[in-house]
Amino acid sequence: MAERKAPDASRRSERSRTAILTAARELIGEIGYGKLTIEAIAARAGVGKQTIYRWWPSKGAVVFDSLLALSEQADGAGIVLPDTGDIEADLKTVLRATAAEFADPEFEKPIRALNTEIINDRELAAAYREKMAAPMTEAKKQRLRSAQRAGQLAADADLDLFLDVLYAPLTQRWLLRSGPLDDAFADALVETALRAFRPR
Amino acid sequence: MAERKAPDASRRSERSRTAILTAARELIGEIGYGKLTIEAIAARAGVGKQTIYRWWPSKGAVVFDSLLALSEQADGAGIVLPDTGDIEADLKTVLRATAAEFADPEFEKPIRALNTEIINDRELAAAYREKMAAPMTEAKKQRLRSAQRAGQLAADADLDLFLDVLYAPLTQRWLLRSGPLDDAFADALVETALRAFRPR
Repeated sequence: MAERKAPDASRRSERSRTAILTAARELIGEIGYGKLTIEAIAARAGVGKQTIYRWWPSKGAVVFDSLLALSEQADGAGIVLPDTGDIEADLKTVLRATAAEFADPEFEKPIRALNTEIINDRELAAAYREKMAAPMTEAKKQRLRSAQRAGQLAADADLDLFLDVLYAPLTQRWLLRSGPLDDAFADALVETALRAFRPR
Repeated sequence: MAERKAPDASRRSERSRTAILTAARELIGEIGYGKLTIEAIAARAGVGKQTIYRWWPSKGAVVFDSLLALSEQADGAGIVLPDTGDIEADLKTVLRATAAEFADPEFEKPIRALNTEIINDRELAAAYREKMAAPMTEAKKQRLRSAQRAGQLAADADLDLFLDVLYAPLTQRWLLRSGPLDDAFADALVETALRAFRPR
């Protein structure tokens, strides 16, 4: 039989933590980031304000962790991009899915809130890059390296620049609501990026 | 002799308006957008809060107009991009200047504040697109059409997509502070966009 390692206090802590992160996520969806307060999160989670401040320095930090928990849950053991051998088809699959997520008002709301914080908070931006963006970027680069080996992408292509050109227009259109986030736009971006970085 | 058209009240209004917009711009530079209040703007401009609320519905709207006034001042009669006949050289000149502006902490502060507002305010985003972005986009497209006529850019190139691919990575790197805003990055973006849209 498994030895009981966690004392009651630690299990209670873990339960509170989960309740706080869930409350933060739910409330962003319901009332938006602007109106969200530490008080409201505490009330929804059934904990005291001080419990939240013991673990997080700010509203932005709680929201960040609540989204990080969500992405860890969704991605499970690790992030892998599809590899059917056709880089254009695979990138279209991935970019269409990203565009659809951004176009979904319920899904995008907390990510928009996080982006607003990141834009105005240097430290949060660094944490975002390290914890959320970096693993995702590495997964994408693995797929691009496979395309380079298959001769579908220039061997000397700057993969960071490739990803910037592929994703930044999508992110910008989403943040500024400057156009539709549809399959046609996703496909056009994939075709443009591949044209710029095809083997010469 | 010129007829006196403006009664005193109208001239006083214009003076107040200018004072309010100047105060908003100065205060953003000094204390940042987050701490800026209508009260502080009113105090600095030497007007009552109600004077501000008579003309603008929100802090974001005042800030927006203060930046619009600045860009109208700077651009004078209209916006024209350089046209030396070499599209690559001209775009590098323009993009290097944009990168340098974004890299300047004093210059970029109010624009970052405006972007934060736009991301969370659909109506402000629409006003931004119509009043600030559209004239700039049209000026850029004029230069690109000249490059198409000169055979330096594909005749059927999607110019909106071209501008997205050229500018969005720069804007994103600036907003997320994810890398240096230097000449090398500006040049790489110009070369990439031109590669993707060269004549076939």
